[in-house]
Amino acid sequence: MKPRAFTFDAYGTLFDVHSFVLQCDYVTGDLRALATLWRQRQLEYTWLRALMERYEDFWEITRAALRSSVSQLGIEANEAQLDRLMEGYLSAAAFPDAWPALESLTGVPLAILSNGSPKMLQSVVRNSGLEPFFSDIISVDRVRTYKPSPRVYSLGPKILNIPAQEILFVSSNSWDAAGAKAFGYKVCWCNRENKKGEHLGFPADLTVPRLDQIIRYI
Amino acid sequence: MKPRAFTFDAYGTLFDVHSFVLQCDYVTGDLRALATLWRQRQLEYTWLRALMERYEDFWEITRAALRSSVSQLGIEANEAQLDRLMEGYLSAAAFPDAWPALESLTGVPLAILSNGSPKMLQSVVRNSGLEPFFSDIISVDRVRTYKPSPRVYSLGPKILNIPAQEILFVSSNSWDAAGAKAFGYKVCWCNRENKKGEHLGFPADLTVPRLDQIIRYI
Repeated sequence: MKPRAFTFDAYGTLFDVHSFVLQCDYVTGDLRALATLWRQRQLEYTWLRALMERYEDFWEITRAALRSSVSQLGIEANEAQLDRLMEGYLSAAAFPDAWPALESLTGVPLAILSNGSPKMLQSVVRNSGLEPFFSDIISVDRVRTYKPSPRVYSLGPKILNIPAQEILFVSSNSWDAAGAKAFGYKVCWCNRENKKGEHLGFPADLTVPRLDQIIRYI
Repeated sequence: MKPRAFTFDAYGTLFDVHSFVLQCDYVTGDLRALATLWRQRQLEYTWLRALMERYEDFWEITRAALRSSVSQLGIEANEAQLDRLMEGYLSAAAFPDAWPALESLTGVPLAILSNGSPKMLQSVVRNSGLEPFFSDIISVDRVRTYKPSPRVYSLGPKILNIPAQEILFVSSNSWDAAGAKAFGYKVCWCNRENKKGEHLGFPADLTVPRLDQIIRYI
């Protein structure tokens, strides 16, 4: 099948939100554990607040997850240091395979569909130089809930005006891939770290080790 | 305040779902890691499936989480061994403080409000000998979603016919305590392991280190 559009997840798929934490040498502590726990807690808080029907935007959730993580790990960090860690989300680097992947797929609309707040997404996309590739940068903030709610995934077909089954949804987060598949997209799981798949049902249509491999399969 | 009823979470609050995994000497591998990952994955799958609006009951989710966990940890376990691990959920021991706590609180209705399927709850409550304490054993299965959805918490006031703010909701899971508080219950967090609280908002009204301490505060 030749998709009529591509929709990309942002954090962990196009943008690396792990590496910049490891480079924060102004913080003393186990930075690898911090990167992992911060990300895990951040996702948990999106799921919990979405289920509680108590939406707060992704910037607020990311900061709450950071506070929770440094507290749990016993890392001493003042407000200025937490601010600097948070700023990493505004300038996170694109993975090296993102640019060649996007370039190889131009010709049909490319979009982002992300948990990020509009300001966070605008900043990270602009800073990375990837902005010209995208027709639409879609934030969950429009529906004030989080992935994997079908209300989020419905934004793609609605805004692109293309049926979900003719869009290839690309994510490195296997639970996000499952959510998009359950909604009705064609789905590509970019499994960079060779992880085991989730046991959630709704397997991806395509699994690739890097984004720049997608072009070989379509 | 003197609550007009008490509603208890089951797994991790009344019943210990960690220890029986450590005793499964018929499985070779890191049982401590298995107990932790199985529980984490189980909760993640409830949150994800609830948000995806793809409910499966807690027995199915618990089994999927077990499969995912043994696969990720590289633990070799055949179907019979997985079945035996699953059976742990049907006969998990009550924490030692559960019986004295429940006995001290009789006189008003005591209920369970749990993610567990009706069969799982019936079995574990009966096997523990705690059954006579409870007026109602309420499963999320009635509304086919999971905590912390308000649809789950609404079952307590509805079935007990008592307003949420006059019920003390007791949970050892801090995210569950936050969800119940956001819904409108009075909430007690039983923090046996002296963990840091979540940064989710909605702090508990009361925190105790053991269930049998609740009676001292009401």
